Amino acid sequence: MKNTKFLVIAFLFCGATWSQEVKKTRSEIDAKVSELLSKMTLEEKVGQMTQITVTIFEDPKKPGYFDAAKLKQGIQDYHIGSILNVPNPGAPTLQRWQETMTAITNEANKSRLKIPILYGIDAIHGASYTAGATLFPQQIGLAATFNTALVKRGAEISAYETRASSIPWVFSPDLDFPRNPAWSRMWESFGEDAYLSSRMAVALVDGFEGGNVGSKYSVASCMKHYIGYGSTTTGKDRTPSIIPERTLRQYDLTIYQAAIKAGAKSVMVSSGEINGTPVHASKHLITDILKNELGFEGVVVTDWKDIIYLNTRHKVAETKRDAVRIAVMDGIDMSMVPEEFTFYTDLVDLVKKGEVPMSRIDDAVTRILRMKFELNLFQNTVANLKDYPKFGSAEHIQEAYKTAAESITLLKNKDAVLPLNKSEKILVTGATANSMKNLNGGWSYTWQGENADTYAAEKLTILEAFQTKLGKENVLYTPGADIEKEDDAEIQKAVELAKSASKIVLCLGEKNYTETPGDISNIFMSKSQVKLALALAKVNKPIILVLNEGRPRLISDFEDKMSAVVQCYLPGNEGARAIVDILYGDVNPSGKLPYNYPRYPNSLEKYNRKYTESLADEEQNNDAKYEKSYSPQFEFGSGLSYTTFNYSNLKIDKTEINNTDQINITVDVTNAGKRAGKEAVLLYLSDNFASITPEVKALKRFDKISLEPNETKTVKFTLNQKDLQFVNEDLKWISEKGTFTVQIDNLKKDFLLK
Amino acid sequence: MKNTKFLVIAFLFCGATWSQEVKKTRSEIDAKVSELLSKMTLEEKVGQMTQITVTIFEDPKKPGYFDAAKLKQGIQDYHIGSILNVPNPGAPTLQRWQETMTAITNEANKSRLKIPILYGIDAIHGASYTAGATLFPQQIGLAATFNTALVKRGAEISAYETRASSIPWVFSPDLDFPRNPAWSRMWESFGEDAYLSSRMAVALVDGFEGGNVGSKYSVASCMKHYIGYGSTTTGKDRTPSIIPERTLRQYDLTIYQAAIKAGAKSVMVSSGEINGTPVHASKHLITDILKNELGFEGVVVTDWKDIIYLNTRHKVAETKRDAVRIAVMDGIDMSMVPEEFTFYTDLVDLVKKGEVPMSRIDDAVTRILRMKFELNLFQNTVANLKDYPKFGSAEHIQEAYKTAAESITLLKNKDAVLPLNKSEKILVTGATANSMKNLNGGWSYTWQGENADTYAAEKLTILEAFQTKLGKENVLYTPGADIEKEDDAEIQKAVELAKSASKIVLCLGEKNYTETPGDISNIFMSKSQVKLALALAKVNKPIILVLNEGRPRLISDFEDKMSAVVQCYLPGNEGARAIVDILYGDVNPSGKLPYNYPRYPNSLEKYNRKYTESLADEEQNNDAKYEKSYSPQFEFGSGLSYTTFNYSNLKIDKTEINNTDQINITVDVTNAGKRAGKEAVLLYLSDNFASITPEVKALKRFDKISLEPNETKTVKFTLNQKDLQFVNEDLKWISEKGTFTVQIDNLKKDFLLK
Repeated sequence: MKNTKFLVIAFLFCGATWSQEVKKTRSEIDAKVSELLSKMTLEEKVGQMTQITVTIFEDPKKPGYFDAAKLKQGIQDYHIGSILNVPNPGAPTLQRWQETMTAITNEANKSRLKIPILYGIDAIHGASYTAGATLFPQQIGLAATFNTALVKRGAEISAYETRASSIPWVFSPDLDFPRNPAWSRMWESFGEDAYLSSRMAVALVDGFEGGNVGSKYSVASCMKHYIGYGSTTTGKDRTPSIIPERTLRQYDLTIYQAAIKAGAKSVMVSSGEINGTPVHASKHLITDILKNELGFEGVVVTDWKDIIYLNTRHKVAETKRDAVRIAVMDGIDMSMVPEEFTFYTDLVDLVKKGEVPMSRIDDAVTRILRMKFELNLFQNTVANLKDYPKFGSAEHIQEAYKTAAESITLLKNKDAVLPLNKSEKILVTGATANSMKNLNGGWSYTWQGENADTYAAEKLTILEAFQTKLGKENVLYTPGADIEKEDDAEIQKAVELAKSASKIVLCLGEKNYTETPGDISNIFMSKSQVKLALALAKVNKPIILVLNEGRPRLISDFEDKMSAVVQCYLPGNEGARAIVDILYGDVNPSGKLPYNYPRYPNSLEKYNRKYTESLADEEQNNDAKYEKSYSPQFEFGSGLSYTTFNYSNLKIDKTEINNTDQINITVDVTNAGKRAGKEAVLLYLSDNFASITPEVKALKRFDKISLEPNETKTVKFTLNQKDLQFVNEDLKWISEKGTFTVQIDNLKKDFLLK
Repeated sequence: MKNTKFLVIAFLFCGATWSQEVKKTRSEIDAKVSELLSKMTLEEKVGQMTQITVTIFEDPKKPGYFDAAKLKQGIQDYHIGSILNVPNPGAPTLQRWQETMTAITNEANKSRLKIPILYGIDAIHGASYTAGATLFPQQIGLAATFNTALVKRGAEISAYETRASSIPWVFSPDLDFPRNPAWSRMWESFGEDAYLSSRMAVALVDGFEGGNVGSKYSVASCMKHYIGYGSTTTGKDRTPSIIPERTLRQYDLTIYQAAIKAGAKSVMVSSGEINGTPVHASKHLITDILKNELGFEGVVVTDWKDIIYLNTRHKVAETKRDAVRIAVMDGIDMSMVPEEFTFYTDLVDLVKKGEVPMSRIDDAVTRILRMKFELNLFQNTVANLKDYPKFGSAEHIQEAYKTAAESITLLKNKDAVLPLNKSEKILVTGATANSMKNLNGGWSYTWQGENADTYAAEKLTILEAFQTKLGKENVLYTPGADIEKEDDAEIQKAVELAKSASKIVLCLGEKNYTETPGDISNIFMSKSQVKLALALAKVNKPIILVLNEGRPRLISDFEDKMSAVVQCYLPGNEGARAIVDILYGDVNPSGKLPYNYPRYPNSLEKYNRKYTESLADEEQNNDAKYEKSYSPQFEFGSGLSYTTFNYSNLKIDKTEINNTDQINITVDVTNAGKRAGKEAVLLYLSDNFASITPEVKALKRFDKISLEPNETKTVKFTLNQKDLQFVNEDLKWISEKGTFTVQIDNLKKDFLLK
């Protein structure tokens, strides 16, 4: 095979020095791009900007395999530059991916300029569209670890396994900043805090791209969905967002800034609108801010069909052709068309008629070609499977297990009901108790992840993990409930079994979803599951509630009747083992909630609320009963351990600073219990008065440490001037004189900015 | 009495020609203001800007009566210009108001310059703080009438009765534009549409101020709460709003523009923040936009304690003194301090130290004095009760009844279960069935309206109105439920009674509230009431659900089991008679919903949503079940009649227009049923494509007509260029070429703007 030779050559270039070499050759790459661009016809250029879904090229009689004529048409007639998505029926093996990519590469090599096709994929929480890949917790779980090193290592493994699938480009990380926790993609984000999101974004970009994105173990990342996508007012996917530019800059944009600084190679644009302007039609957001102000030099790709939707959904373009003109002029470099070629034909026509200048096309194609050179695709497009012995290996699986174990968050543990004792008779029940599908969520083998129980059949469900630990005969089980349908007979069965158990492990959650199929209109846990919980509560046995959910579904109807609450998010294929190890104390839990878990459906405040959202008692009118605004079920940063961490000696090195000083902060953390444990130490800052109403507190630093029993560690943080700043009405980052309060755990120290 | 003389003089000036005379003397008034201002000391000027609550001056041993020394201190030492609120224990008689105002006036007349005190009050839905006053439906009900003439007439009556109480200034209309229907003051607004709100705002201002605000039958209005107050993200009162200036201008600001054009004399500032800036600290909103751009020449007053709250709640001012400086420099003219005098002392000091220029003080005091002259307060501060023979009269009561009758909205009438037949045995039940308190809501006699059953004891509750119509012995009754507390025994009692009834009238609603005491975290109807509804439904008798609520509490848990749904909002003292007359068909209902009634707690879309909030089926992914975003329980504009109105012959006079043309629209409406009826004809416009994502439709005109059986009327509307415009990204009102669709009922016509 022709490609093998290139792979060998590419391999020779790999290694410790490659990274430096790439940095040296940025100008070399630019020269190559210029040279290639100068040879290209208009059609070839516009083709590079065209991304098509792979299924369009399939043979309807043989799903998953190409119709050679269709593939030829796409590559030779429309000169397409990129393909995305997964062949039918989902999750090919490494071999099938290799065959697929070989077919594409062979066709590309028949084209005039032999420009490689850039293949992109929604590899979320691992190479999630490849059979046998290692599947990590979803992003919301990564955030809950508060462990950036662990998260970066996971991204390295995901990159390795994705490249093993011959795919060089992942549509990850998700940098969305959800303002409504009911959003169907909440779980794809890092939760509600911009600083935590930024740190995690950098960990993922670093892990994916490594020192050298052209290495055969690295992939290009794609920040998504630029910008404001996760902030729809109603929480429904792809509906309008309202975000003043001031808040966009204060929160959302900082996450992108961090990821761009880390080197992220591409960005996917939000399908939504902000303040009435679809982001795909916003020159201000794409060209002025992203490309010019932030200096982003990578590729800007649309989301699914989003240029067409400017016409058919958003109605800001009267025709599809108009939509193409608007989007390209506003800064789009590549269109995920993706099911036909109108983008190509319209854009060629627009350039010919002078409605889009060649300079804009050249800018877009330069970015795309640069990324292809940086990814080393001209040498290396198909994986040599021998290079990837660790694909799906025990070593990788162990990392996924560790990540799941550090993400799982113990929210309640009344009377130390946990850890469980192996001698106790346990009833395992609930709709998510025996399912790989629910552990993984969407973007797992298929779009909605509905077939994970087949693809991950050899992995353990929660029930199976219990059975493995205790022996099958020692675990009582019945599903107890369906997620949607009420079933009184099943509830009765669970209640009967509960009577002979010492404790009940109740596993509740959500159906699998992502995007619009995950839209909900009611954030309460489903009625069928609430009914089961209430029925079991009447048996008067301690109940351990295991939440397996992508977003916080309200449990206030029955939470007071639960002895323990364990949030496991969507922990992936190794999640069940981690859950059961935590329930039995073989692992000490250390996850912390990356969002406020609401108590009521119409009270969805974030932790970094304003003071007016949680008034002190003395400021309330007492003429009438006042229903407190702010009372989340569990607050951001909540997370218990089986040991006790004591905080003491909070110190700051200055009580007054000027506007160039840094401030150093130390705090002692002691493990006062009898078990070793990990603790995420969170530092919050409050600006006590500011011309923009200050947040009650905001996370500014965190560090995750391990402590043996009786061990004390001194944790050190440094705050700089940027940490004291906020975006004012003129959209400038400024700080203002006055007092600030540092808070770690319940310890506080003030300092004055003079 | 000294004042009587002035009253007589004032009376001589009243009448048909007074209005013209005032218009002639604007320059005269300005001259008087200048002259008076030139005589004033700094302390006297700052005093004018100081508003104090009346209860501060009370004798603690004799609540409701002044401590003469305290009143003297306020007026002579602090030179206060304004007093607000109601003496204890609430709702004085006309005589008590006269005595109170006389005492204040006498004290003011002892001051050096004898400047009258401007007394302001929350006279909402009538002179609601005066015993015996005529109480109208609350504002949300006024909006539901879609009858501006009726609403204006009601405001005239309210003005008359307020002036009869010697009070010249009402804190009404409420121009809030609620974006979250859970907001506790939803019912004080005109609902979710800016055009309907604007039309109703003008009707109220016209009614309050008349041709001549100085007449003894007129009061100065106060637009509130400028601006964005009703749009908090969480729906909690006095919590942050997020409103980009583009949307603020497109919606909220248009309502203020209309009311200012109608002559509104004052404005109260929002207690909230917009995008991080408290409105009381926004020079941009108060001075740049309101005063300079809109040319508002009236008085800008704070809301309760809101300058102090800049320090203690919003934390944008480090001290109370700073808060005073910020608010005054940003454009505040009068501070509702209201419980002490720090505003006065701080502001005097600020001016003396040059931190606030005298020019700003003079601008504020000029506005206040101008309003006092316009109100004719120098001649007329205390009412001569003989001038107000119609206070609380049958004539006024009949107007309140008519308004209630036109507001009540029939939302569902399955199998024509309504109207009821007098021969049927009816069970009347529910927590709001026998209460004047619930019919009136907050701002009724007292702040939270909790004592309306005492003050309005002689008025009819829903139960009493049934008993009056049918005879006491023909009506079954039991409360069935408390609004908050669950009571199974009461439910059982209602169920038993239901068995011997033909039909059930189930009255559900909310506890009384306004402002923060009305905050809710769950928009569902209370559990105790849902339980009653579900229990009654099992009896299998037709249930007529009467909703008596300030905001739409969700009924989706049981709505399918109700035969009829009647929304009566907060219809006031005459509401029960109107409800029962409608239930029996003595009045044909004609109200229409001024908001979307949501079905689910996390799906609170407005009717004028964007297309992306209600995707057409062909644009959805059908890979997975898609839960539709947009499915309100009842949509904005819903409202049934006992007759049938047919729409036909929708005509537009041009199918193409240029950018100066008006467009005339006609439609025929026929009463095809057997009863006379009223119909609000609503005209919607859709801009089919626009550079800011267009609304699916927006209300542009309405007209309420009466039709006898078989009668047809042709309704005519004219749209102008402004109706085709929207606010673009540059904050300019523009129209764009393309097609527009006019929609009336289900008829549609397109036209093209060339």
